[in-house]
Amino acid sequence: MILASPTVRPVTPLGTAFRQSVRDALRKSAAARGLDGVLLLSPANVFYACGFNFSVNERPIGLYVPVEGEAKLYIPLLELENAEPVDGVELGIYEEFPGLVHPVVWMLDQAKARRVAIDVLDARQLDPLRTLLDEVLLEDLALPLRFIKTEAELELTRIAAGYADLCLARLHSEAGNIISQGGSELDLLADCTGFALAALKRDYGLAFAGTKLGISASVHSGPRAALPHGSTSSRRPQVGDTLISGVGASLGGYHAESGATLIVGDVSAEQRRVMIAMEACNDAGVGALKPGSRCQDVNEAALDALRQADLGDTIRHRIGHGMGLEGHEAPWLAPGDMTEVLPGMVFSNEPGVYRPGLDGFRTINTMLVHPDHVEIPSRFLATTPIDQRAIAL
Amino acid sequence: MILASPTVRPVTPLGTAFRQSVRDALRKSAAARGLDGVLLLSPANVFYACGFNFSVNERPIGLYVPVEGEAKLYIPLLELENAEPVDGVELGIYEEFPGLVHPVVWMLDQAKARRVAIDVLDARQLDPLRTLLDEVLLEDLALPLRFIKTEAELELTRIAAGYADLCLARLHSEAGNIISQGGSELDLLADCTGFALAALKRDYGLAFAGTKLGISASVHSGPRAALPHGSTSSRRPQVGDTLISGVGASLGGYHAESGATLIVGDVSAEQRRVMIAMEACNDAGVGALKPGSRCQDVNEAALDALRQADLGDTIRHRIGHGMGLEGHEAPWLAPGDMTEVLPGMVFSNEPGVYRPGLDGFRTINTMLVHPDHVEIPSRFLATTPIDQRAIAL
Repeated sequence: MILASPTVRPVTPLGTAFRQSVRDALRKSAAARGLDGVLLLSPANVFYACGFNFSVNERPIGLYVPVEGEAKLYIPLLELENAEPVDGVELGIYEEFPGLVHPVVWMLDQAKARRVAIDVLDARQLDPLRTLLDEVLLEDLALPLRFIKTEAELELTRIAAGYADLCLARLHSEAGNIISQGGSELDLLADCTGFALAALKRDYGLAFAGTKLGISASVHSGPRAALPHGSTSSRRPQVGDTLISGVGASLGGYHAESGATLIVGDVSAEQRRVMIAMEACNDAGVGALKPGSRCQDVNEAALDALRQADLGDTIRHRIGHGMGLEGHEAPWLAPGDMTEVLPGMVFSNEPGVYRPGLDGFRTINTMLVHPDHVEIPSRFLATTPIDQRAIAL
Repeated sequence: MILASPTVRPVTPLGTAFRQSVRDALRKSAAARGLDGVLLLSPANVFYACGFNFSVNERPIGLYVPVEGEAKLYIPLLELENAEPVDGVELGIYEEFPGLVHPVVWMLDQAKARRVAIDVLDARQLDPLRTLLDEVLLEDLALPLRFIKTEAELELTRIAAGYADLCLARLHSEAGNIISQGGSELDLLADCTGFALAALKRDYGLAFAGTKLGISASVHSGPRAALPHGSTSSRRPQVGDTLISGVGASLGGYHAESGATLIVGDVSAEQRRVMIAMEACNDAGVGALKPGSRCQDVNEAALDALRQADLGDTIRHRIGHGMGLEGHEAPWLAPGDMTEVLPGMVFSNEPGVYRPGLDGFRTINTMLVHPDHVEIPSRFLATTPIDQRAIAL
């Protein structure tokens, strides 16, 4: 079988105007709270607000966005040349970690701010900062902005979903050959991720150099398919097994997922029954994902569909998570998340049935919320009906 | 050239007795501070104290070690089967994240502790926990234990260093062929890491299944060798370039590093001068690394050797970092780290010379501190004299 790659679209990384608009929204948010500015320390937030993508280690990197004036990007000296091309920020440089003063304390001293919001902070720094400043608001002001993706962000998400699908399609196409030749889960994983990553790099690698672009996936089968968090092993899948694969793909920093359960050999009546119930669960999640709903209620609606099939106890996790600059990010389609669903949000939809000693299943779609409908850019499940999800040996 | 793999040694992952001894030391430390127990939330600390290795995501996993009584491992429901084999702990299970109560607050409520030390905490949880408990000590009591490696931990570090060396030896052996055929930095990286990882998995993969085992490396050349944090690119190295490769290897969770600068073509007189100065810097670091010294003074002694060669301004980072269950961990051979050097500590030794517009160099050794000498298990630099660090095209 020859697998067609998705059509290459003429997209580029989000540019200076987008980053500027993010910083303006942060300024507005800080001003509304009577603050002098916002210090972002989460690597995803720093990338979001200025486009600086860096290798994360113990040396903190911070972006300070004041209500008035230019943003400051605080870096350790060894990142100098990497940070120089960043548009619209002044650089502030500290020598090395740990140094005599903690870099975060140093950043806020440099910023001369008295009242700041900080997105994420080591608790050990809280009392020192409260001594130094008039107000420390521990609130991630970038997060509600990141919840709502612009059309350009959604487009990157759509394209990423296409390569997650490509990875699954390759697995579906090659698994029979690989298993017949004695191949293991690890062999299957290496083949399908290598194929999809090569296509993604060929199609977008040059235009997106220096941003996050990748494929990560898992393949697990048989008894370990009953583990929601099973790792890929050297096990050779056997006839009758369910084989679960979940794939994440990212382009320009934006993540999407697609995932399926395949059957080694023929699909049994019980396997078909479970997979039909999971489709109903998936569809109930899509149906409940309307602007104005609460995130936790979408989870409940989806799980209700499993309960109706007497499989309510067999899913041991929430139905989905937000996606964007992180593979898993708030809001969560989970108990306790009261966030209102809004157009522009992106979620996974992950029905699962895990029956230790018997079998395990999971499927994954990516969902983009629009004012009047849910768009599903992951297409593997829709284009591969249940009876075709078999691996012939 | 045929590269000999290191001799395979009869080691196994650290077992129940080691984990028990770590928990006993934590109990003693907590008791000495008048606490009821210690909550560990850092994944490396949880692994250190009970051997549970897990895929890190937004769902917190915590190990509570009380001064009296059995340790409790707190996990989300979807990790149940993965956590069941962990010896010497009782499991406490929460349903899902975020849930109605933050999992860390829930853990401490379950533990019924009034006075606890917590290793690492999101600042947003500090005020709620101070309301709930009588004392919250923000101190990582596991860290000083992790500083001092036992002989079994040092042995895993030594073995890991051998595979970092193997990766460099493969690079040294194959780079000429690969570059001659038009290969890029990325091709060099794929070849040498693939080779070393295959050897590591062949030799130790079965015995160390379920623990962290891996190779990570970078290759960067020419103008970007002048960046301390340069990424590997599709650039083809050119005659006259310096080519920097740094390799990290891990076995059973323990990390070691080895790194070198190779010259494409012949080694010039100026390149030789710099590399000799870096050897002097490396040796000064080794010489200063004596029990009783302070970490920051070891950094100063090493950098002094570069200053004496008029290259003092060209290194833009500290000389080294601690290694163990994390690739970079405290203590740091850096300004501001007053920690006393003790036998059993493990550090990197990373002389660097970065001259933007001209060239860049870095070498890396791993150093194990003994009462009366420093052991250097990374052997590539010692066995490959400067004039042999050339890549013939």
